[in-house]
Amino acid sequence: MIILKIGGNILNKPGALAEALDYFAALKGPAILVHGGGRKASEVIAAMGMEPKMIDGRRITDAATLEIVTMVYGGLINKQVVADLQARGRNAIGLSGADGNAILAEKRPVKTIDYGFAGDVLGADGEMLWRLLDAGLTPVLCPITHDGNGQLLNTNADTIANETAIAIARARPEEQVSLRYCFEFPGVMRDIKDADSWIPELVPNSYAGFKADGTIVGGMIPKLDNAFAAVAAGVEEVVIGDLPALRAGEGTRCMENK
Amino acid sequence: MIILKIGGNILNKPGALAEALDYFAALKGPAILVHGGGRKASEVIAAMGMEPKMIDGRRITDAATLEIVTMVYGGLINKQVVADLQARGRNAIGLSGADGNAILAEKRPVKTIDYGFAGDVLGADGEMLWRLLDAGLTPVLCPITHDGNGQLLNTNADTIANETAIAIARARPEEQVSLRYCFEFPGVMRDIKDADSWIPELVPNSYAGFKADGTIVGGMIPKLDNAFAAVAAGVEEVVIGDLPALRAGEGTRCMENK
Repeated sequence: MIILKIGGNILNKPGALAEALDYFAALKGPAILVHGGGRKASEVIAAMGMEPKMIDGRRITDAATLEIVTMVYGGLINKQVVADLQARGRNAIGLSGADGNAILAEKRPVKTIDYGFAGDVLGADGEMLWRLLDAGLTPVLCPITHDGNGQLLNTNADTIANETAIAIARARPEEQVSLRYCFEFPGVMRDIKDADSWIPELVPNSYAGFKADGTIVGGMIPKLDNAFAAVAAGVEEVVIGDLPALRAGEGTRCMENK
Repeated sequence: MIILKIGGNILNKPGALAEALDYFAALKGPAILVHGGGRKASEVIAAMGMEPKMIDGRRITDAATLEIVTMVYGGLINKQVVADLQARGRNAIGLSGADGNAILAEKRPVKTIDYGFAGDVLGADGEMLWRLLDAGLTPVLCPITHDGNGQLLNTNADTIANETAIAIARARPEEQVSLRYCFEFPGVMRDIKDADSWIPELVPNSYAGFKADGTIVGGMIPKLDNAFAAVAAGVEEVVIGDLPALRAGEGTRCMENK
């Protein structure tokens, strides 16, 4: 059981997207695709004469922005990816968190920053997703969730992927769940300038060491914290790499301590 | 088994939409909702500085327009309606024709007019829709289809409703399928200025008479031709009326000759 997350570095390049969908469509057995789309949303926001609002790289989702991300993630990107997978013989079904109540969230509480209609995930419905998979359908998840009271919420796609993997693993502990993040590097890098410096395997102990000695810093830390949270919650492995790495069975594999 | 189609007269008025969703969510047993959204699409097209292109009330779907209707129908409207139904306790799942390969279409051949990326429906997958219904899910269909080769297509929502009803009836002939069109009048009118002049029941024979004597004219003819095509294909009844009429079990009921 494989859950693949693709982001803007893939979605904004038609050639890269086609390659990623070739890879995904050819995976054996049940699979789930999770996509982002922030760059395209920013383009549409600009085309409508608005300014994307970001603080520290996180989008502030006011009501007008929520309409646009719902259109772009749930409509434009999700439906085209589904149609592209159908053309590759994979019977895809596009879902937001509201569809089938797949992912329930709550509006992020306002502390120092008001993120607007941003959703913090409460949980994914692994049973429902397995029912779709059992029916021969391949869920394609966009990063829109809901609060159960009719409010849609903009949600981080990495979080969607992580929570989905955890719920899928919890619902069927006998299944081995592999969560794969497709990003712009061949793996977690010791030295960002050295393409060969990717780390083949991380376990909580080695990860703690790399954090302590300053090898792993910045934006990789929340990504890997999430990865190890998934591993601790029953996901067999989390693999992080670019498409060639994932295709070759490489990338950084995050697993439990041995 | 009820299939309800709602259009722009409902979707563009929040109060009317809430009432229609109250009615739909409270229906007993399996149900499918089909929505349009042309008016909202025209608003978004205008907001992006483009001109809606229409010939004889039918949209010409160029590539940029297809992106917008995919965003508006598949994203904005579909996801909000799904979230609104979840809030009413109905486990809705939003679908385009690409999702689960629910509705396959072909690009409309160019005769005198090139409608661009407009889809003529080849057929709906009644078996797949029943599998979702059996899993406790309520499909919410938007008027976007696909050609199976990765091309999304803009498709008339009445046609989606009709073809879905036919496919649902064919897949389970033992089920009684009621297709309900929610539109702006209490039923098919003998006299558009007389609110009491709605026709309670039509069968092919009486319909032919009303067409011959000029009682039924204009845009009602393609609507009713479709309705009787659905009845001939195994749909038990097609009911046409406004929301109060449908709620009261009134409206014009189209059935087979007795």
